[in-house]
Amino acid sequence: MGGVQFRGAGLGVPIEGGLGDARIARAALTRLIEPGDRTGAALVAALGPVAALAVATGRTRADQGLDAEIGQRVVEGGAKRWEGVATAQERWRGRVAHLAPERDLETIARFGGRLVIPEDAEWPEGFDDLGEQAPIGLWVRGEERVATPRRSVAVVGSRAATSYGLEVAGEISKGLADRGVTVVSGGAYGIDAQAHRAALASSGSALPTVAVMAGGLDRYYPSGNEELLRAVARRGLLVSEVPPGGAPTRHRFLRRNRLIAALAGVTVVVEAQARSGALSTVNHAVDLGRLIAAVPGPVYSINSVGCHRLLRNGAAVCVTDAQEVWELLAPAGEGLPEEETGRKAVHDGLSIEDVLVLDSLPLRSGASVDSIASVAGLSPGQVRAGLGRLQLLGLCTRAGEGWKRTKEGA
Amino acid sequence: MGGVQFRGAGLGVPIEGGLGDARIARAALTRLIEPGDRTGAALVAALGPVAALAVATGRTRADQGLDAEIGQRVVEGGAKRWEGVATAQERWRGRVAHLAPERDLETIARFGGRLVIPEDAEWPEGFDDLGEQAPIGLWVRGEERVATPRRSVAVVGSRAATSYGLEVAGEISKGLADRGVTVVSGGAYGIDAQAHRAALASSGSALPTVAVMAGGLDRYYPSGNEELLRAVARRGLLVSEVPPGGAPTRHRFLRRNRLIAALAGVTVVVEAQARSGALSTVNHAVDLGRLIAAVPGPVYSINSVGCHRLLRNGAAVCVTDAQEVWELLAPAGEGLPEEETGRKAVHDGLSIEDVLVLDSLPLRSGASVDSIASVAGLSPGQVRAGLGRLQLLGLCTRAGEGWKRTKEGA
Repeated sequence: MGGVQFRGAGLGVPIEGGLGDARIARAALTRLIEPGDRTGAALVAALGPVAALAVATGRTRADQGLDAEIGQRVVEGGAKRWEGVATAQERWRGRVAHLAPERDLETIARFGGRLVIPEDAEWPEGFDDLGEQAPIGLWVRGEERVATPRRSVAVVGSRAATSYGLEVAGEISKGLADRGVTVVSGGAYGIDAQAHRAALASSGSALPTVAVMAGGLDRYYPSGNEELLRAVARRGLLVSEVPPGGAPTRHRFLRRNRLIAALAGVTVVVEAQARSGALSTVNHAVDLGRLIAAVPGPVYSINSVGCHRLLRNGAAVCVTDAQEVWELLAPAGEGLPEEETGRKAVHDGLSIEDVLVLDSLPLRSGASVDSIASVAGLSPGQVRAGLGRLQLLGLCTRAGEGWKRTKEGA
Repeated sequence: MGGVQFRGAGLGVPIEGGLGDARIARAALTRLIEPGDRTGAALVAALGPVAALAVATGRTRADQGLDAEIGQRVVEGGAKRWEGVATAQERWRGRVAHLAPERDLETIARFGGRLVIPEDAEWPEGFDDLGEQAPIGLWVRGEERVATPRRSVAVVGSRAATSYGLEVAGEISKGLADRGVTVVSGGAYGIDAQAHRAALASSGSALPTVAVMAGGLDRYYPSGNEELLRAVARRGLLVSEVPPGGAPTRHRFLRRNRLIAALAGVTVVVEAQARSGALSTVNHAVDLGRLIAAVPGPVYSINSVGCHRLLRNGAAVCVTDAQEVWELLAPAGEGLPEEETGRKAVHDGLSIEDVLVLDSLPLRSGASVDSIASVAGLSPGQVRAGLGRLQLLGLCTRAGEGWKRTKEGA
């Protein structure tokens, strides 16, 4: 027990052998323990990865006292009951024979990748908020480090996106990448793919995009996105909590969504049907206290039903372009709100009295002050003062004995 | 001073001669005093209509004490300063010669209408919240009484509406009228006209629609809506605070919007450009503490920019159909939320363990319990229990020595 204590090592149990052993142990644990397995996560948090692996594989039995202590943590963490490490060991046993962490680390290295672990300085800051739901390790393909949530936005939505949804997703994602923001998504067809593609099209200098995969990084799922995912691995990052060879099961897709939410400061739903998987990402983002934004669309589009419900129940902020998303991400003052555009109307900034005078002026022949006063319901003195102000603004002019509107005042 | 004291008669000054004199006085005052004239409104509130008319027309001078008292009320009502009744008299003087209230009452009667005044039992309940911004009287064409805000919705929006906006406005308005809700709007081209038209198309038994006009009810403005406005007068209500012959000036349009807001429990903006007049109605509704709703649309439509801004800044609730608007209007419990539609997904309601088992089942040939356990990361006992539950739900079935998914479980 002569190891160094690292960040994330749980109850403070030193890791035997240091970082190398921790990485190998975590590599094995990512294969052994299914994402979302609370018992496994609590075991690692309590014992550190090396000792946890020994217990999980049955090489060491958890003694009664430790079992109770870990159980307490799991229950406090929200689990309904504590199954006990012995029961979990039974579940994990079927996978022990398949463990080959060194081989998995070699595989990821062949793909230009690595396993990032909580003991590393580059462990994503966004995972801190996940607590014991944080992944055991993060398999990564790509050279950059994962960006901070303060500079990352998740862009998610329907696989069966409409051309409208694809267009908005593209504009928002490109605009965010142009502003130095990393676009996080799930690599799926539809909105996800468009978000990655558009971010890669940006010439911004920051990490353009991160695709969080549900399976191992040695495969491309869905296969139709292979070229895109290869491009993401080259110029952005492919990440997964599942080791090479791991299948992208439905359960892993659902668990994967918590990582997308955790890596991003804001989650933008571009299009979502009533029961879209994107809404699972939203639920995780809400749990993490992250901001949700939703893009509105035609009320007749079933692909916008989920977005409109999020807007209606107040879960999401309405966003229509990259600038509006960026303002949600930027700390106060950093994001300068875009200038209001649109032509100023003639009566903008006029007092009620001056509007009354202006409204009472004829367009063609001139009207007398008394006649204007009667129409406007103002005194002759008020009308004269108003005419003076309006004349200065070029909105009215003398016409014979009286006054009329100019073209600018019409 | 032997008159009866009526509701709305201000400081409690009895009206000489009773209801008939009050009506004639208010008929005259609606011509004399421009909508939004705080001095005039305060004068009527303080003295009652008959005495106020005498003062406003200069037949009686306001004494010093009364002037100060009324001034106090005006300033408390939010005015920056009190101009004094004498100054206001100067403003009103130009219109005194044109007063002919009996003739105006005859004119409205010829159009099948009447002047409703605060002293009447049918004075719209919604105007109570306007305080001293309430109209002096309401010129009405049509036989019904104005409905309560609890049963009225304002549907407003762009004059230059898109076909999308017109379709949504129509569906919402028709749906509301079908539910016994009165649709209030401004009689303008575009969304307003569509709202009135769709409400008239309903076979509901309640008052279908109210058009609040900016000018006198003896004219049809805009003229292209004449046929529609005549239909509203026949089967709904045309109302205005301006007497017959009054021109629909820009100032009166802006003031008119507060009446639309006040008559409705919810104001729905269907389409609005960044500087739409509909947003003036929204501002009044906010001041009155009424609910605002906005219809989302494509982010590329300039006609939805105003709606999206209202959603974004939290001023409005997102609504996509009549049912959702109706739920905003209905007191808790009265509006039964519509059933969620949409097919239940296969994994809805399953435990995480059962989802893991289901995900691990092959579709074609059967897999052994041990093999499923290894894939799922569960113990053989857990897999067997899960298979039992899934089989009961028809999601899996035996296949040879093993198990596979059914079509329902796919």
